Amino acid sequence: MTKFTQVLGQIRPVDTSLAPAVQAHLDNLTKPRGSLGRLEEIARRYCLARGSAQPEMGKKVIYTFAADHGVAAEGVSAFPPEVTVQMVKNMLAEGAAVNVLARQATAEVRVVDIGVNAPLDDVTGLLRHKIAPGTENIARGPAMTGAQCRQALEVGMQLAVQAADEGATLLGTGEMGIGNTTPSAALLAALLPCEVEAVTGLGTGITPERLAHKQTVVRRALQANEQDLGDPIGALSAVGGFEIAGICGLILGATAHRVPTVVDGFISTAAALTAWRLCPDVKDYLFYSHLSAEAGHREFFEQMGVRPLLDLEMRLGEGTGAALAMFVIEAALKTYHEMATFDTAGVDREDSSS
Amino acid sequence: MTKFTQVLGQIRPVDTSLAPAVQAHLDNLTKPRGSLGRLEEIARRYCLARGSAQPEMGKKVIYTFAADHGVAAEGVSAFPPEVTVQMVKNMLAEGAAVNVLARQATAEVRVVDIGVNAPLDDVTGLLRHKIAPGTENIARGPAMTGAQCRQALEVGMQLAVQAADEGATLLGTGEMGIGNTTPSAALLAALLPCEVEAVTGLGTGITPERLAHKQTVVRRALQANEQDLGDPIGALSAVGGFEIAGICGLILGATAHRVPTVVDGFISTAAALTAWRLCPDVKDYLFYSHLSAEAGHREFFEQMGVRPLLDLEMRLGEGTGAALAMFVIEAALKTYHEMATFDTAGVDREDSSS
Repeated sequence: MTKFTQVLGQIRPVDTSLAPAVQAHLDNLTKPRGSLGRLEEIARRYCLARGSAQPEMGKKVIYTFAADHGVAAEGVSAFPPEVTVQMVKNMLAEGAAVNVLARQATAEVRVVDIGVNAPLDDVTGLLRHKIAPGTENIARGPAMTGAQCRQALEVGMQLAVQAADEGATLLGTGEMGIGNTTPSAALLAALLPCEVEAVTGLGTGITPERLAHKQTVVRRALQANEQDLGDPIGALSAVGGFEIAGICGLILGATAHRVPTVVDGFISTAAALTAWRLCPDVKDYLFYSHLSAEAGHREFFEQMGVRPLLDLEMRLGEGTGAALAMFVIEAALKTYHEMATFDTAGVDREDSSS
Repeated sequence: MTKFTQVLGQIRPVDTSLAPAVQAHLDNLTKPRGSLGRLEEIARRYCLARGSAQPEMGKKVIYTFAADHGVAAEGVSAFPPEVTVQMVKNMLAEGAAVNVLARQATAEVRVVDIGVNAPLDDVTGLLRHKIAPGTENIARGPAMTGAQCRQALEVGMQLAVQAADEGATLLGTGEMGIGNTTPSAALLAALLPCEVEAVTGLGTGITPERLAHKQTVVRRALQANEQDLGDPIGALSAVGGFEIAGICGLILGATAHRVPTVVDGFISTAAALTAWRLCPDVKDYLFYSHLSAEAGHREFFEQMGVRPLLDLEMRLGEGTGAALAMFVIEAALKTYHEMATFDTAGVDREDSSS
């Protein structure tokens, strides 16, 4: 049995038997019933995922997977491909947005080279799991081989298991890869499924003219790989990316260890959908951090019937949305654990005839 | 010149001359232009309000004003009026939701008795500024006298000035007062203006039957006080509450000292609208923390053309929304101050032809 099938086999549904005890605790806190809104929903979901009615919040870790994309050669991004490696160095120097926001949320950022097109021998602090120096051009054929895809998934799984062993109880996803909204759009179009136009957006800021070209590239990618799109792993190998596969593996590994994952933005959502399609139980272990300004993100939420926590019109990736959402999730848990109850505080309950 | 007119006279528009320098700094940070979305908007607004292109984030203080309401006798709330004083004690014991969320956001909570119907002599840590032990019943006549209203406004102003002198650079509003969605609805209906139905909601959780009764009470309040609703202070005295007036004064005092205020939820918004109507320059100094689940909140945002930062379906008040939003605002400021620039990090900018 490979690591991959072993991890999939460990995934269990969340523990819904805890729901009445969790709800009773929530309703005993000094507030009108339900008045903390989605904070109560977060606490409930976190408890059921962790399998405890009084779960502690441990370490919070964001994994930012970096990789390059053959499809960048098609001119689908506003930035040159060299920016992937430059931003990896910026993250390791703590200068990127994700570093600032994760510090503020007291989460750790770990940067993973899973497929950057540069040796990166001269940097420290990097987790080195390079599968290859970037994917092949999906507009012409598969992004990666099946073996490479499996390898990238297992990198993510291994990192999740390691974090769980270190006491992490909440993981966040993040990515850096010039061109990566293009494979994400292709993957969403294949797995939701939906029209290419519905999930292909401006990325880091291309012009409307380039958007039409980008949509053509996504369509070519789906045509060139048509025979492989029938199952999640096939689609991931064909039109995905190494960081997308890494995030998918991270989610699966975390779920197998009952560690909920905070899904960052558009690209991370493509990875989350892949994990969900592979194993439907995954869905109850995920928190969607925010609605990205990337146009196609809304399509995912509408089709899958799930809701992001924040809508701050961000479209940066890296794990920036996950960092902000981790704060909200921790805040929800703290109200759950630290608020007084009606009895201990001597506060009257609502009039039951109200 | 009274303190009230003096403070109003000190209010100045935000410093829009700083906008180009602030924007240039934002566009020099290592991210696609505009990709931090509303975090960039927050940083911009904070800079202009503070009158500095590099403003520090100092102390963050939430003032939670507590008061009782004569109109509670009409049966407009799901909770008995005694809960106001019980919750004040709970807040002073750090057991309320606002205490937990403010701790998490590293903000201080200060609880102000501005009109609670209990002596509260036996508690410590309370700021004592009681105007009277609750307002009169607005369904039958004015909530308070003009002199009481002025006094409550000046309490808020004084607290804001004091906080600014202590180095606070961001204030938050909060309130506790059984029955206070009713005067808030009346005030919004008078000052937006709008229909009573559009701003009268379920509060802490009344039944649909009681909602119809509550709407009748709001209508009676507007009729009973019809002759006083023509100006903001008249309306505030007639159908407001002591905590609402205190929050209005806090906002005006903070604005006079160029300290932005984070407006909590529905009740705080009624106070913010009063301040805005008194002095339109106030609007650029305010951050709206969240869209409350209280039905009428949306009406305010739609009519006034402003947007809340969060939508977590909360409807608790106390300052809970302000506490969460303070974290987001501080996160925005931190990205502004702590991110690397393209030049220092050696990251390529976007293709200008993109």
